[in-house]
Amino acid sequence: MKLKRKDVLGLAGMERGELELILETASRMKEILARRVKKVPTLRGRSMITLFYENSTRTRTSFELAAKIMSAEAINIAVAQSSAAKGESLKDTLLTLKAVGADCVVMRHPASGAPEFAAQLVDIPIINAGDGFHEHPSQGLLDLLTIHERKARFEGLNVTIVGDLLHSRVARSATWGLLKMGANVTLCGPDTLLPREFSSTGARLETSCDAAVEGADVVMMLRLQAERMDGAFLPGVREYAALYGMNSRRLSRAKPDAIVMHPGPINRGVEISDEVADSKQSVILDQVQNGVAVRMALLYLVMGGSEE
Amino acid sequence: MKLKRKDVLGLAGMERGELELILETASRMKEILARRVKKVPTLRGRSMITLFYENSTRTRTSFELAAKIMSAEAINIAVAQSSAAKGESLKDTLLTLKAVGADCVVMRHPASGAPEFAAQLVDIPIINAGDGFHEHPSQGLLDLLTIHERKARFEGLNVTIVGDLLHSRVARSATWGLLKMGANVTLCGPDTLLPREFSSTGARLETSCDAAVEGADVVMMLRLQAERMDGAFLPGVREYAALYGMNSRRLSRAKPDAIVMHPGPINRGVEISDEVADSKQSVILDQVQNGVAVRMALLYLVMGGSEE
Amino acid sequence: MKLKRKDVLGLAGMERGELELILETASRMKEILARRVKKVPTLRGRSMITLFYENSTRTRTSFELAAKIMSAEAINIAVAQSSAAKGESLKDTLLTLKAVGADCVVMRHPASGAPEFAAQLVDIPIINAGDGFHEHPSQGLLDLLTIHERKARFEGLNVTIVGDLLHSRVARSATWGLLKMGANVTLCGPDTLLPREFSSTGARLETSCDAAVEGADVVMMLRLQAERMDGAFLPGVREYAALYGMNSRRLSRAKPDAIVMHPGPINRGVEISDEVADSKQSVILDQVQNGVAVRMALLYLVMGGSEE
Repeated sequence: MKLKRKDVLGLAGMERGELELILETASRMKEILARRVKKVPTLRGRSMITLFYENSTRTRTSFELAAKIMSAEAINIAVAQSSAAKGESLKDTLLTLKAVGADCVVMRHPASGAPEFAAQLVDIPIINAGDGFHEHPSQGLLDLLTIHERKARFEGLNVTIVGDLLHSRVARSATWGLLKMGANVTLCGPDTLLPREFSSTGARLETSCDAAVEGADVVMMLRLQAERMDGAFLPGVREYAALYGMNSRRLSRAKPDAIVMHPGPINRGVEISDEVADSKQSVILDQVQNGVAVRMALLYLVMGGSEE
Repeated sequence: MKLKRKDVLGLAGMERGELELILETASRMKEILARRVKKVPTLRGRSMITLFYENSTRTRTSFELAAKIMSAEAINIAVAQSSAAKGESLKDTLLTLKAVGADCVVMRHPASGAPEFAAQLVDIPIINAGDGFHEHPSQGLLDLLTIHERKARFEGLNVTIVGDLLHSRVARSATWGLLKMGANVTLCGPDTLLPREFSSTGARLETSCDAAVEGADVVMMLRLQAERMDGAFLPGVREYAALYGMNSRRLSRAKPDAIVMHPGPINRGVEISDEVADSKQSVILDQVQNGVAVRMALLYLVMGGSEE
Repeated sequence: MKLKRKDVLGLAGMERGELELILETASRMKEILARRVKKVPTLRGRSMITLFYENSTRTRTSFELAAKIMSAEAINIAVAQSSAAKGESLKDTLLTLKAVGADCVVMRHPASGAPEFAAQLVDIPIINAGDGFHEHPSQGLLDLLTIHERKARFEGLNVTIVGDLLHSRVARSATWGLLKMGANVTLCGPDTLLPREFSSTGARLETSCDAAVEGADVVMMLRLQAERMDGAFLPGVREYAALYGMNSRRLSRAKPDAIVMHPGPINRGVEISDEVADSKQSVILDQVQNGVAVRMALLYLVMGGSEE
């Protein structure tokens, strides 16, 4: 089984069938993760190179484990110390990685669109591991997988995403995926962090968090980046927590069986209270585990692994 | 074979039987290290994550090789660049590592007790790779293994530990382990670096190095950390070397077949002279090799590897 | 098959037969790289440690992949963060690496001669991955392999090397190898970067790039290090590019089937124009791929791998 597309750059353009193929593949990968011996020869002799222009231990580790579980080689390049830092062009870096033997490049870049540009430069698969404020497709997919595991459907599901929408590639990827699968998406945040244009996606915009959470099946909290906390975007962390933080009282407005999500790492007491983070409704750790499964599925699908 | 305890946090609370089990397991691991093809499938499909809040190439490399020789995956997280640096709580970091698939976390932390705290937070094994001035159990165990290889017993053995006792987790772990195994331990260092309370362990305290070395079977030198060298603790490096450095003349007070140990990296000419470091009595490189064997044993015992 | 020498320190002292053995071995390694499943058990259970006192993602990644393709363990030590940075002597570092289980150390060091010194200190093989302005033998060997693939001979071939000869270990290794194999070597660069002594090697020296390129079968461009660009060595980058940069017009002086080489990363518009870098005459990416094959050959030959 293989994706029809060479690369995984975002969920924006993906067909429902493609999303379903990835989610089904990821579900099968979870069976491997449940084993005592988590190792299959599926991608033996294939090499994944992570090319990270921004630091991300969490996402990089998840891809690295996904590759290793399928017996692929994983080579990590942190660009701060690499030749790209010596002024090499992105094209030359990618052609070099291909020549060195990469069968797939997993790329994180501060500039929106950089992975798409990269995908045109080389004929090996590029997986976007986060680009600027644009997309973070493996995160969006693990969100979809986690929701589907708990709710067994997307159609008609009410999903509320709360936080700094303006700067969130996580929210963008999740929104595109959820809308394509038939969910109702409500985006909620302070005016300064909730661009009007987002309504064109088909999502509902809401500045009142209480209103946004009302009747939700899924509440997805976004991480508040430290650099925004004392910027011009917010009056202050305390006020943000009071107006947009998720606590038990606010969560009680959602459906009783609503789940709470967060891409991590969480700021306890800011976007989420301890009580909610540690409650049965929280699926934050499922998201982490599903992240490995989704990344295994993506690596498998783009590199066309052999059947076990 | 498995340890009765989930974690390896220190030697202080360990029973003699447990220490013996680890040392016997490590001895068997040494047979693997002596082979041309140093690879066994014992921990195939299991993942060790090293979570280091302090840098340590030496200890990290030793654990990494130990894991790889037994076919486990080794993922290294240097916390300076990770999400823990983004303010994530230790609990959330550990739960995330478990969710991502870690079967064991090897942890180094500047705060004494951090690994013990960690061990209570997650149900996967935690191996302490050094915490503050508290313990460094795998180092203590490799010291025990090295001594036993050369002396074939612990009972009644005279072991003298010389240096900065106050700041040494290495000395603490070795002392607990040696006393439990029946050795006589003498701790020796300048007054400022030799807390009186240490006598409650059952060790003898001695400020004269010549007296402390008299009749020793084992002389264990501690590394003098650069940050102490010009602190308030010492009159100066030259004086320290003269009073507490190990040289041939001073070593001649020990038994003729005494061995000299050091956890490395050594400061030649400070705590140990070239002559002693490179002599037949030095077992410093045995310690390094035994470090891999001991770490293989610990990983095997806490993860309950399958028999080869 | 094994090299007669323990270490690979440079091409200066190598016999023709040794160079041929390495190149033939590397050619066979290329067959493995052409497979879909790039993995052989040749060096299973053997460990390569890279010990880099200077950063180099490119060379380190190439060695790491070479090791992994042959199933060896690859452990990377960046010395900035290691105990060597704590003042440990090179000898103690190497003895420690051997004791920890290294079967081979791949070493990069800013001081010319450091790997040779290292090779005398331990009885495990040392591969020089670049030392000061001295040698970079695996680079020289990949250059030879690339030239031989395209020209099927060395005898009588005209090879012109252009750039900062003074500071180039790449040029030194290539020159020694090429001369030994019977090629004619012309070294070309501005006076300040082209020491007169180089003529003693048997190479021709030439300050006019147009003259140097005339009738060449191979044109090898060197990277202009950023730190030279505004130093006392050059009038300016623009003038350097005009006088010594390779462009189509200048390249037309070489033979019509001449190939253009560069060790990368390339400074487009400085030492090489886009047109030339992306032309059919450019073999820069072949060099990268051959780098993995050559490093596989070196690791195999110094560690004496079992036949597949």
